[in-house]
Amino acid sequence: MTGGMTQPLVYFFGQGRADGTAAMKDLLGGKGAGLAEMTNIGIPVPPGFTIASSICIAYLESRQFPPRLLQQVEAALQRLEAATGKIFGGTEDPLLVSVRSGAAVSMPGMMETILNLGLNDETVVGLAKQSNNPRFAWDSYRRFVQMYGCVVFDLPKAPFEEMLERRKQAAGVERDIDLPAEEMTQLVGEFKAHITAATGKDFPDRPLDQLWGAIEAVFESWHTKRATDYRRLHSISDAMGTAVNIVTMVYGNLAEGSGTGVAFTRDPSTGERVLYGEYLLNAQGEDVVSGSRDPEPIERLRDTLPVAYGELERVARTLERHFRDVQDLEFTIENRKLYMLQTRRAQRTGHAAVRIACEMVEEGLITQEEAVARIPPMDLDQLLHPTIDPKAKLDLLTTGLPASPGAASGAVVFTADRAEERGKKGEAVILVRRETSPEDFHGMVEAKAILTARGGMTSHAAVVARGMGKPCVAGAQEVVVDEAAGFFAVDGRKMKEGEWITLDGGTGRVLAGRAALVEPELSGDFDRLLGWADKVRTLRIRVNADTPADAHRGRDFGAEGIGLCRTEHMFFEGDRLSAMREMIVAADDEGRQKALARLLPMQRGDFEGIFRAMEGYPVTIRLLDPPLHEFLPHDPAEVARLAEEMGREPKELQRIVDGLSEQNPMLGLRGCRLGIIHPEITAMQARAIFEAACTVAARKGRVQPEVMIPLTSTVVEYRRQALIVRQVAEEVFRERQITVPYLLGTMIELPRAALTADEIAAEAQFFSFGTNDLTQTTWGLSRDDAGSFLPYYIEHGIIPDDPFQVLDQSGVGKLISMACDLGRRTRQDLKLGICGEHGGEPAAIAFCDDLGMNYVSCSPFRVPIARLAAAQAALAKRGTMDRTKATV
Amino acid sequence: MTGGMTQPLVYFFGQGRADGTAAMKDLLGGKGAGLAEMTNIGIPVPPGFTIASSICIAYLESRQFPPRLLQQVEAALQRLEAATGKIFGGTEDPLLVSVRSGAAVSMPGMMETILNLGLNDETVVGLAKQSNNPRFAWDSYRRFVQMYGCVVFDLPKAPFEEMLERRKQAAGVERDIDLPAEEMTQLVGEFKAHITAATGKDFPDRPLDQLWGAIEAVFESWHTKRATDYRRLHSISDAMGTAVNIVTMVYGNLAEGSGTGVAFTRDPSTGERVLYGEYLLNAQGEDVVSGSRDPEPIERLRDTLPVAYGELERVARTLERHFRDVQDLEFTIENRKLYMLQTRRAQRTGHAAVRIACEMVEEGLITQEEAVARIPPMDLDQLLHPTIDPKAKLDLLTTGLPASPGAASGAVVFTADRAEERGKKGEAVILVRRETSPEDFHGMVEAKAILTARGGMTSHAAVVARGMGKPCVAGAQEVVVDEAAGFFAVDGRKMKEGEWITLDGGTGRVLAGRAALVEPELSGDFDRLLGWADKVRTLRIRVNADTPADAHRGRDFGAEGIGLCRTEHMFFEGDRLSAMREMIVAADDEGRQKALARLLPMQRGDFEGIFRAMEGYPVTIRLLDPPLHEFLPHDPAEVARLAEEMGREPKELQRIVDGLSEQNPMLGLRGCRLGIIHPEITAMQARAIFEAACTVAARKGRVQPEVMIPLTSTVVEYRRQALIVRQVAEEVFRERQITVPYLLGTMIELPRAALTADEIAAEAQFFSFGTNDLTQTTWGLSRDDAGSFLPYYIEHGIIPDDPFQVLDQSGVGKLISMACDLGRRTRQDLKLGICGEHGGEPAAIAFCDDLGMNYVSCSPFRVPIARLAAAQAALAKRGTMDRTKATV
Repeated sequence: MTGGMTQPLVYFFGQGRADGTAAMKDLLGGKGAGLAEMTNIGIPVPPGFTIASSICIAYLESRQFPPRLLQQVEAALQRLEAATGKIFGGTEDPLLVSVRSGAAVSMPGMMETILNLGLNDETVVGLAKQSNNPRFAWDSYRRFVQMYGCVVFDLPKAPFEEMLERRKQAAGVERDIDLPAEEMTQLVGEFKAHITAATGKDFPDRPLDQLWGAIEAVFESWHTKRATDYRRLHSISDAMGTAVNIVTMVYGNLAEGSGTGVAFTRDPSTGERVLYGEYLLNAQGEDVVSGSRDPEPIERLRDTLPVAYGELERVARTLERHFRDVQDLEFTIENRKLYMLQTRRAQRTGHAAVRIACEMVEEGLITQEEAVARIPPMDLDQLLHPTIDPKAKLDLLTTGLPASPGAASGAVVFTADRAEERGKKGEAVILVRRETSPEDFHGMVEAKAILTARGGMTSHAAVVARGMGKPCVAGAQEVVVDEAAGFFAVDGRKMKEGEWITLDGGTGRVLAGRAALVEPELSGDFDRLLGWADKVRTLRIRVNADTPADAHRGRDFGAEGIGLCRTEHMFFEGDRLSAMREMIVAADDEGRQKALARLLPMQRGDFEGIFRAMEGYPVTIRLLDPPLHEFLPHDPAEVARLAEEMGREPKELQRIVDGLSEQNPMLGLRGCRLGIIHPEITAMQARAIFEAACTVAARKGRVQPEVMIPLTSTVVEYRRQALIVRQVAEEVFRERQITVPYLLGTMIELPRAALTADEIAAEAQFFSFGTNDLTQTTWGLSRDDAGSFLPYYIEHGIIPDDPFQVLDQSGVGKLISMACDLGRRTRQDLKLGICGEHGGEPAAIAFCDDLGMNYVSCSPFRVPIARLAAAQAALAKRGTMDRTKATV
Repeated sequence: MTGGMTQPLVYFFGQGRADGTAAMKDLLGGKGAGLAEMTNIGIPVPPGFTIASSICIAYLESRQFPPRLLQQVEAALQRLEAATGKIFGGTEDPLLVSVRSGAAVSMPGMMETILNLGLNDETVVGLAKQSNNPRFAWDSYRRFVQMYGCVVFDLPKAPFEEMLERRKQAAGVERDIDLPAEEMTQLVGEFKAHITAATGKDFPDRPLDQLWGAIEAVFESWHTKRATDYRRLHSISDAMGTAVNIVTMVYGNLAEGSGTGVAFTRDPSTGERVLYGEYLLNAQGEDVVSGSRDPEPIERLRDTLPVAYGELERVARTLERHFRDVQDLEFTIENRKLYMLQTRRAQRTGHAAVRIACEMVEEGLITQEEAVARIPPMDLDQLLHPTIDPKAKLDLLTTGLPASPGAASGAVVFTADRAEERGKKGEAVILVRRETSPEDFHGMVEAKAILTARGGMTSHAAVVARGMGKPCVAGAQEVVVDEAAGFFAVDGRKMKEGEWITLDGGTGRVLAGRAALVEPELSGDFDRLLGWADKVRTLRIRVNADTPADAHRGRDFGAEGIGLCRTEHMFFEGDRLSAMREMIVAADDEGRQKALARLLPMQRGDFEGIFRAMEGYPVTIRLLDPPLHEFLPHDPAEVARLAEEMGREPKELQRIVDGLSEQNPMLGLRGCRLGIIHPEITAMQARAIFEAACTVAARKGRVQPEVMIPLTSTVVEYRRQALIVRQVAEEVFRERQITVPYLLGTMIELPRAALTADEIAAEAQFFSFGTNDLTQTTWGLSRDDAGSFLPYYIEHGIIPDDPFQVLDQSGVGKLISMACDLGRRTRQDLKLGICGEHGGEPAAIAFCDDLGMNYVSCSPFRVPIARLAAAQAALAKRGTMDRTKATV
């Protein structure tokens, strides 16, 4: 797209014809493409021209303009003079222009604008004459010099404002508008003198010099820190560059019959089909944006300037129909005549996006597939959780990891007991801890949300909160918790027990006070949209669910099975925890068998509930994958309590607990390693699974268990564990006189498993990629410890995204792709899925779809997102998505 | 080799001709192939036949003999009757045979033997008549029944021994040999009755039934736990099977002119060229092995039976010349006539192996390349370190990880201070600690060896000990250290301070008391052999060295450069440690700069020393890769001391130290991550390197620094760090007015680096594979924590070897191979090497050679081993090794 030698560098628009079109967004930027397209379809746009974005990068490399550009800009200026009947630098009726940036991707507020360019001591006289308004002409000149000084000469704004203020005081007026023309004239002189004093350079009086200086400034602004940071944050390529739009000035501040405003073709918050926006009479665009005057709601314009309003409504309808999407418009009314200055695809809330898409389908404006294609899947998150009111004023304390979505407010408490006590009384409390452990479970149940200072996205707090559907911010490293003193501090600021805070688990924000929340609301449109998505997608969507409650929630959201049921999560509560602990610290096989016998009926009960909830859909149950240390008692008092329960010596127990501590628990006795060393654990779990399955099947329920061996690194591990599972299955089927079909497979979560996937697939019937662990090992990066450098890495562009949130396709993805290939080479019908956190990440879902996986599995609230993302992946494969994306 | 339908199942030998040859070892087993070959070259061997090993596996699968086998065994028996003139089951002159197992790989003591088969109540009469010695005949019968009962009927030995004992008591004799024939006759009856009572089966009287029972027993013994465990331990395939050798009996216990013995064609301990061995007159082979009588040294046989001795000498010479290697022989002399029962390649000490190989080259028996090819590289280890005398009686306490080779004895001490105090007085002490930290350094210097209860092969103790060349056993998990009480305990047994223990760092053994040691001795043969190796190999050998002392040692052992200089190891001592700590806990950049300024001259000095020691060979310096926690103060007292030194608040310092603690330090703030966050550290190190290089170069010394960025996971990390290094290099070259050529590259020690090696190689000039970390991340396995299950894994055959000791070629190796391919695809002359512990492992060296790597790097004492292994890898590529291996 970024042209060869013969491609024009400058694109003119005006008099109903434009050189460019909407399809040339990469070259002309969003704004330039929109101006060209509007011109072409007969919308009133002031004439102008756009310098292609490709010049920007070329200029930044050489700091020189190509000679061809000089010629083409001058030619365009001549066309502009012809179109407007004005002369650039003319003293009678001078042509004045605005110069604005405009990249292919909208970067609001990032680039600089200059208005009224072309004014000098001579042309201002012409403007005064033409407008019959000397104050207006000199005010425009004054504004131009100030803007130019700030943008091109890079001077601070304050001195200019101070000079203006002094003039106003001297003249005894309050409003800028009341300053007489002579004062404005003086001010222009002062401004120019200030610029010369500060820079040693004279202010350029030749309009053409002004123009080139402004173009240069637009290009330079592509490289400011603010713009670069924005691009980094939004994964926008630095090589794209910005176009420059040079447009004939129209004036909303010319007289009472003039004004300026912004409008949306539908309400961007609710999606309602009404013209929505606001305007100011007798003002320039910057006055609306700066907030110095309060704008009026757009409907008032109907009464004030009925003709212009009618024209605006007509334009809005035309543009929406033309672009087949809601538009965000900028307009100016000069002497009762409407000019459109910008049209672009409107940002909207998730809620509005769904409603608009559905209604546009009803209106016959777009197809169902287009509706599916155009909703950013992550926007659905807003429909599912309470969110912080975007209009609310926030008092941000710090930001942690967005560990479990949703927002909640409550009084701070520091212990689980206190959370339980106050929570049971009906108080809204937020549990704040350095980190949580299973002993905190009862408090987490009663808290509205959880905040921890340590731990990552897979820490105990994060996992339990996600399971409960409660908001959680984890690993907020700046938070220093002083439980004993009853406060937490962030950078010296203390929050005491009982003070209110608000957590936003979707962004990781921790706010002081009680922020206004917006409650979620699921409309019929939501289900309709997802129904269309389901018709399109081929990838199955499953849910990660550890309890019958999770399983039900997953089904409600449309999950077609459970992709990951983590059996160790079943033991975070009360009784179960103590049985689990007994099992872990058992001195011998006999002690372990006893503890296992206690655990068996608990597990069986859970599995029955889960099987029933899933109504015959497949349920992948992962055998125990404990980070053992999470289950162990943490302090001597806990050890003593457990010792008493078990009738053992506290000292001996402490020795066992110490012996089980590991330097790198993530790389220790985990996954099937435990089942290999203690086969009786695997046998107990297999028995619980198959007994539960037989019970449900015996009552005519359909059951599809898929038993999953965790953390396999060699096929021999898999083989040994699989043998035990098969033996137990046969035993149970014999005992119960019923057979339940089941699959047996493994997690692929270590590089070695991926590398030897051909060997493993010879024995395993399915693979489920555990992308959390696979990311940790492939990168050599513990999620819990990455806080000390990962934020720095992202901020400084060393990595584009947190690999735990966005699947690293070129590293981890390469392993996954290898494993799929190798695995299917030995077993053609190998079932493939993904069950790490990435299972709910849209880009990862597309990646999985491309690899031909059977399903992705994600947490309950991500299921709708995954359904939509999977549909979009399917559409992208068919090419439908690309067409849709190409519209402005 | 394991035949189709037409290949014979049975191979006869006798009368100077054999169906088999030495080359058919896979089919006939080592023993059978040796018997065939000896027969063919005219050595006196009792005639017999061998059943091919391929039958073993077929039999074990079906528990049936193929019909062809029945026919061929009967045919072979007829040939045997013809050759000996005796009849199997004959009552006049019965043919008696021995039945022995014999696999392709020697498995001493693993398989069972039956002698005197063919005896029954009738044939024993014939034997008595033929031998003119009824007592001998009945004793043979008695022995046969007992052996058969134990081996075929699987009965315990004790009841038979008790019956014999009772008979001897009743008869009032002490030695078996004095028991009269009648008593023996009674005993045979008793034995048979016992067998029938215990098994419900009659003892088989038909010789043919006896024979098939014995063959069955040999095959069955392939599957005993002991045999299976042995194979597992030595990586021998279960599918190989054992052959069965059926050989005409000859009797060393027939009369005074008879005897039996074992001999080596050279002394297997020293390598001296003398016939070496021992014998017993009037005895069967089992008497020599059982140790019930003390055998005589072989040279006495010269006086006792001079003709047979002369014949033995002649046979020994013939066999050694024929097989071109030292042979381990079994012989029997029956009535002054020598029979050879076995010949095989003799096991020998490392010392003997080197001497023998060199002398055989001098004698013109083998070529230099054959000498190089036949020494197992690991055997050289024995020549380099004190070892425990193989004849010493040992009191084994426990076994830990073989963390640093060599053996040492000393008095136990539990603190570094005590080790220093007693060590400085000249006492031999062994420092025993739960784990060591930099604070223990002064004690480690004075200790003879180090024992730790925790930590792995890369723990502080292990790394420091290897650097110092001191023996170390690390991670001896059974050791419970009670420093306060002044003892350590293993399974309840206490060792107090001052008590002596002996450590074997080569095997991980911890022994109570002062075991006899053998001091190492380097002969001229050692250098000669390695000189020949150097002529053959193409792979370069470098040393891992962190200090000038290590570098010198590496050069002495023949290293051609340093492959890994770990700069963090330079800071484990005194002053340096405190500067390092200041740097780590610095509150701000300024504090860090101050600490770095202290570190700069220390590093520069070390680098100068190292560059000089390496005499122009390349030196790869790895930038700081700290496991930070290893440097941090461990207890409040240490924190207080550091706080005072730094003039800071202990409480604040403690908070910083706590903040730096990580849940999984292996996956935390390590490697270049530190240099990215604090570029000033990288800059300081680069400055130290280039200033040192310039200093040495300015004095006409040659220097080749290779600067290595550690723990790269994306090319962007590499790029950022490389930029700093290059900038500093330019600065220093400008300041010093001299330029030193250098390379810049990275460690490949994370799966992601290997997977994206093409991108990284576009910027890096060399890769050095850090196989320790690569193994940890590929397997998801922390070396420090693997102790809880890895030993179980190896013992139970889940993995063949500890992947930290033997490179996992199919998993980790696959990544390495991918990275080499990808890397060379973008940079053809990419320099490739390996610097993990596997750099000294022979199989890994062959693997690296196959991949076309430029060098391997290993710890100083492994350098000779690596030189030899690299030569063998080169020979294997040329096919020379295979030929050599094919000899018996």
